[in-house]
Amino acid sequence: MEKLYIVKIGGNTIDHTDNLKAFLKAFSSVPGKKILVHGGGKLANKLATQLNIPQQMHEGRRITDKETLKVVTMVYAGDINKNIVAGLQREGVNAIGLCGADGQLILAHKRVKSAVDFGFVGDIDQINTTLLKILLKEGMTPVVAPISMSKEGQVLNTNADTVASAIATAISSQYSTELVFCFEKNGVLENQEDEKSVINKINREIFLRLKNEKKIFAGMLPKLDNAFSAIEKGVNKVTIGNAMEIAQLIKGEAGSSITEA
Amino acid sequence: MEKLYIVKIGGNTIDHTDNLKAFLKAFSSVPGKKILVHGGGKLANKLATQLNIPQQMHEGRRITDKETLKVVTMVYAGDINKNIVAGLQREGVNAIGLCGADGQLILAHKRVKSAVDFGFVGDIDQINTTLLKILLKEGMTPVVAPISMSKEGQVLNTNADTVASAIATAISSQYSTELVFCFEKNGVLENQEDEKSVINKINREIFLRLKNEKKIFAGMLPKLDNAFSAIEKGVNKVTIGNAMEIAQLIKGEAGSSITEA
Repeated sequence: MEKLYIVKIGGNTIDHTDNLKAFLKAFSSVPGKKILVHGGGKLANKLATQLNIPQQMHEGRRITDKETLKVVTMVYAGDINKNIVAGLQREGVNAIGLCGADGQLILAHKRVKSAVDFGFVGDIDQINTTLLKILLKEGMTPVVAPISMSKEGQVLNTNADTVASAIATAISSQYSTELVFCFEKNGVLENQEDEKSVINKINREIFLRLKNEKKIFAGMLPKLDNAFSAIEKGVNKVTIGNAMEIAQLIKGEAGSSITEA
Repeated sequence: MEKLYIVKIGGNTIDHTDNLKAFLKAFSSVPGKKILVHGGGKLANKLATQLNIPQQMHEGRRITDKETLKVVTMVYAGDINKNIVAGLQREGVNAIGLCGADGQLILAHKRVKSAVDFGFVGDIDQINTTLLKILLKEGMTPVVAPISMSKEGQVLNTNADTVASAIATAISSQYSTELVFCFEKNGVLENQEDEKSVINKINREIFLRLKNEKKIFAGMLPKLDNAFSAIEKGVNKVTIGNAMEIAQLIKGEAGSSITEA
């Protein structure tokens, strides 16, 4: 099967123009077929603050009320998505920006209210891999904003790591998929203070040990859960590492590789 | 050749939720293949005001500085575009939202400075009809935001009427294209105060007479220029009329029909 990279960027990469530029340049040299999924980072918070829309978070995840959904749609699907698309076009990559509503790319349902009501947040049901395949076949690189849509046509906010993982999983029957989570750290670290303490290989056993020793910081837990879930469901390889090292991450020369055993 | 409708909406249709909803419902029943191009209306002005970004206009056209470009990208390609896409999905239309940067849909160059510097405004050079054809063939309805892109990957603001006209023209060699400009008036009016004074057929001769008699209001002039330019370049039919009457406009039962002779 043909190889397909699904790369997710977020946080610092998006928030800093120079980082984003450097990343897009490096991403453009990733060989073959690829999909880029981006998060939102601080830009949505910034706009919400400017518009006096109070932001509530619960365990690092945004609570999305109606006004916040509008902000998130503008920032993720408008500002960030098109900024990345144009940036990639500048590097010779024929990017095409999409959110989950476009061509029903990401169908989801509104998260059922539990102790916490996350508001307009979507849990993914289905990825339209046909659309992705058509675009990839035409030599385009889909750039996906973390917005999903319900069957009833309601736009919903969805975690970008989860989007990347769901896409990689869904399309793994048609491509040999490699999922790369890029962020500002060098990988999963043994010691949060030491960027050189990257754990090169992580399997379930190591994951459980690190979790028990409380060595994994809060933001990394859903990333690793997503990674293991993806591997279980057919993704060939998951790598977690620094966005500035995307070329090395793909070659297995940097970051943390997540494997089943 | 197969028929293709290129419908442009703007102004009041977008600014009022109920109008938009009614329009999208009517648009969804337009038979066969179709493309929707939308403007921005007052929503961009509203956001710019909220963010304290002063807006300058020249003869009804926006002067787009760097900050305004960001606002326009967020509002047009984010908020409005995805709102329309989701609204159409709700009506059973498999819409896909694009701006000119996506898949190099609308290549343009930054307008050369003359007496007025319009800033980040693009004059269209080329439409990627291949991309549109692929999406149409797959049963999707492209929804296009009035943002173009330079060859250098610079996102640019472009008049939505011009975008609709350029798309209709470019794709007219492959489809039998009909261009419909929808807005809040019933058509080109003989008397601005009387919505019943719709001129049903307009050719160049009538256009020149009305122009000389200064009976055509400012906002209508570029619309009619675009209409005649489209007809000259291969578009089959141009209709101008009320967005709420889209079904009748398409049947030729309402609005103004623009013909060459």
